[in-house]
Amino acid sequence: MENKKPLILVVNDDGITAPGIQFLISVVKDFGEVVVVAPDKAMSGMGHAITINSTLRLNTYKNNWGVEAYSCSGTPVDCVKFGTKVVGKGRIFDLVVSGINHGTNSSINVIYSGTMSAAVEGSIEGIPSIGFSLDDHASDADFSGCEDVVKKVISSVLSNQMEKGYSLNVNIPKVSKEEIKGIRICRQAKAYWNEDFDKRKDPFGGTYYWLTGEFVYQDEGEDTDIWALRNNYVSIVPTQYDLTNYSAVETLKNWNGL
Amino acid sequence: MENKKPLILVVNDDGITAPGIQFLISVVKDFGEVVVVAPDKAMSGMGHAITINSTLRLNTYKNNWGVEAYSCSGTPVDCVKFGTKVVGKGRIFDLVVSGINHGTNSSINVIYSGTMSAAVEGSIEGIPSIGFSLDDHASDADFSGCEDVVKKVISSVLSNQMEKGYSLNVNIPKVSKEEIKGIRICRQAKAYWNEDFDKRKDPFGGTYYWLTGEFVYQDEGEDTDIWALRNNYVSIVPTQYDLTNYSAVETLKNWNGL
Repeated sequence: MENKKPLILVVNDDGITAPGIQFLISVVKDFGEVVVVAPDKAMSGMGHAITINSTLRLNTYKNNWGVEAYSCSGTPVDCVKFGTKVVGKGRIFDLVVSGINHGTNSSINVIYSGTMSAAVEGSIEGIPSIGFSLDDHASDADFSGCEDVVKKVISSVLSNQMEKGYSLNVNIPKVSKEEIKGIRICRQAKAYWNEDFDKRKDPFGGTYYWLTGEFVYQDEGEDTDIWALRNNYVSIVPTQYDLTNYSAVETLKNWNGL
Repeated sequence: MENKKPLILVVNDDGITAPGIQFLISVVKDFGEVVVVAPDKAMSGMGHAITINSTLRLNTYKNNWGVEAYSCSGTPVDCVKFGTKVVGKGRIFDLVVSGINHGTNSSINVIYSGTMSAAVEGSIEGIPSIGFSLDDHASDADFSGCEDVVKKVISSVLSNQMEKGYSLNVNIPKVSKEEIKGIRICRQAKAYWNEDFDKRKDPFGGTYYWLTGEFVYQDEGEDTDIWALRNNYVSIVPTQYDLTNYSAVETLKNWNGL
């Protein structure tokens, strides 16, 4: 058992054909036995959605990556559940890696992110889990600068005893490998999206909208993920699924009228 | 300004035709001016999903509730964004209320819940926000026992100064009004879903799945939302969107190899 190769589940939210997951698979293969379960289409912004009002499909995905792979009609979180409960039935996963996302999941983006929700789901199931994102939305983003970071973080997670209760949100700046200054352990920066819906007319005169928006950064701290990225550091935020605000528990106990 | 009636946004995830939201509207109307933006179909389990890969529709929803209402093709979080940025443009909302959900959103369910993600989104936008859920999945669930609870919690939120950074996850046990023992301020109980995919054949011989599962409760604490519900108390968990695990930030700084 000691020498068994780690069993690693690879997921993403940009879909199984995205360059980001293909790059991640190529790096992760060196660490153990890889099983891929990824959405059959782009699933960005799906957050922690699961499919309970409709049916799900799972298909073997033929590939030249030399790994066992499946495409799934569901969300990134569905993919994790399929991976651990259907595809991996009877096998114990040692690691879940999600990404590499085309675009940052720093700050409040973590909550909308399918990439990070897949990692969070892995941690809920008790498996050490990591979400990787590159700060470049382009479909042809250059992931080559990520290789050393991915290797370093995976090695650390496999060799250190990672506690249960959280996953790692790893964001990588859009610079060359040589320009990356190092890794910073950070907190999630305070920010929000100020939406600006783009209102249009369809060819039949009906009104429809596209959700767009401006990112509003509200944090001057130098211990945040956004500060790290802006200063060419890789950010790692330990991301938990216990959403309780413990200090507010005490505050609310003293409220009048409750 | 002091005597201005509160402006209240009502959303849900079971869709605008669900009895739960209709009951909530009937109660909330007494507290101020109500604007409803709710999904045009059931959106349970959508978590914090937003619609960025497809277009969105928003339609006026004719009703006999005596309020301004809209149905939306998007997710519960999309509905909050439409409410505050399109429908309510130029108006400041004093409160977001979401629900009443048909089914509990206690414990880990909070993370999959469209109802609670809508409330969380309200809090991200800086608006005091509450998600209400009844521990009864039935489409014809009896919400009459919820009336006093909804009134009490809304009154408290409007009269007490609620800090920013969290929303309230209110779960109501499935018992009569008389049997409710009171309100408990709680933490989110530790638990997870052990999925059991239901594998079926379609009429054409193809394989498809339904996501089902068993709820695994891992918490013996008497300060949790599940303990409260099982003992006929209403549970309130302050639910935050800063997902940083602060103690792990310190742990990770001491890891070898990072």
